[in-house]
Amino acid sequence: MQIAFVLYDGFTALDLVSAYEVIASWPEAENRFLATEMRPHHADNGLIVSPTDTPDSLPRPDVIVIPGSSRPLGPLENQALLAWIRAAAPHAQWCTSVCTGSSLYAAAGVLGSHPVTTHWAFREVLAGMGATVSTARVVIDPPFASGAGVSAGIDMALTLTARIYGEATARMIQLAMEYDPQPPFDAGSPEKAGPQVVGEVLNLFAAALQPN
Amino acid sequence: MQIAFVLYDGFTALDLVSAYEVIASWPEAENRFLATEMRPHHADNGLIVSPTDTPDSLPRPDVIVIPGSSRPLGPLENQALLAWIRAAAPHAQWCTSVCTGSSLYAAAGVLGSHPVTTHWAFREVLAGMGATVSTARVVIDPPFASGAGVSAGIDMALTLTARIYGEATARMIQLAMEYDPQPPFDAGSPEKAGPQVVGEVLNLFAAALQPN
Repeated sequence: MQIAFVLYDGFTALDLVSAYEVIASWPEAENRFLATEMRPHHADNGLIVSPTDTPDSLPRPDVIVIPGSSRPLGPLENQALLAWIRAAAPHAQWCTSVCTGSSLYAAAGVLGSHPVTTHWAFREVLAGMGATVSTARVVIDPPFASGAGVSAGIDMALTLTARIYGEATARMIQLAMEYDPQPPFDAGSPEKAGPQVVGEVLNLFAAALQPN
Repeated sequence: MQIAFVLYDGFTALDLVSAYEVIASWPEAENRFLATEMRPHHADNGLIVSPTDTPDSLPRPDVIVIPGSSRPLGPLENQALLAWIRAAAPHAQWCTSVCTGSSLYAAAGVLGSHPVTTHWAFREVLAGMGATVSTARVVIDPPFASGAGVSAGIDMALTLTARIYGEATARMIQLAMEYDPQPPFDAGSPEKAGPQVVGEVLNLFAAALQPN
């Protein structure tokens, strides 16, 4: 089972690693890290991650994992990456994404009418791209499997694990990563956080959502 | 606020990135990635991360973040890393860890009687090193702040954020990363997972916990 974890400049590290820590633990996982250039790539908060592959060396992975970004319009202009997604996605068993990563499938033109989820602050942009946007935290609609913002990659990947390998395997991975979440606050969704916190986060993101 | 995210061969990527995604978002964060050698380091599932600093260039960070490993005895033999921790920790405002990362503070001899937590399957080993081991998911005992296994880094870092910057900032970061966990199963702790799943995970870890 060849897994392509996708890297690009400005990706959000936890979008990738939340899904990676689960999927890279699959019994038959062959973990590969793909970028369109064979050089280190900087996440949006500075983490530096290197690819193992480029499109030439990884044309047909079994599973694709695409992270989002806090500057989500950037990767949508990476034509080489979109071309790879366009070529690879139709042959993949699973096309997964976390956060705004689902927009890359939409931009590549491979999403069709499959419903996907995304970061709550990005729903309107994604819908404007013609995507069928769900507000759920996890959406599985084969071959697409998407998680909402950032940390939702854990829930998406565990759900997908159970679907492919069965519930016992998913529970084992969950216990190995001690995923027994105890958030100190209840502010993880716009409804729970309330209008003031929502406004502050939207202000943070506003510049990133402006087209050039 | 200079943050040292510590890298070493075989670290668990989500141990680091769960805490990083929160801490690297702090209002005054200057994010640095430290390893004892200036070369890419491989996480235990294959992610390749590069440092920005070595001990010479980052002698006194304000905050230290140490991830654990699924092969936790390895980093305890990294004398150069332990020497850096021994020199840097007494000057740091916060010495944080996720998963088995707390054992590096113990091995460096800087922990004293401060209580720390760790991955549930590593508690006995850590206690055997002379550490005061808590079974809590998050332990804040200044200057130490520790999280339990892997995904607990999110809860630890949000708790610490509230302590340093106030609850409003923690809530904003929580909403930005959409941390509204909805695990598909309730198997994140040994008590909840039950003896069969616990046994399977312990079998997985058994080889990694054998001394050489």
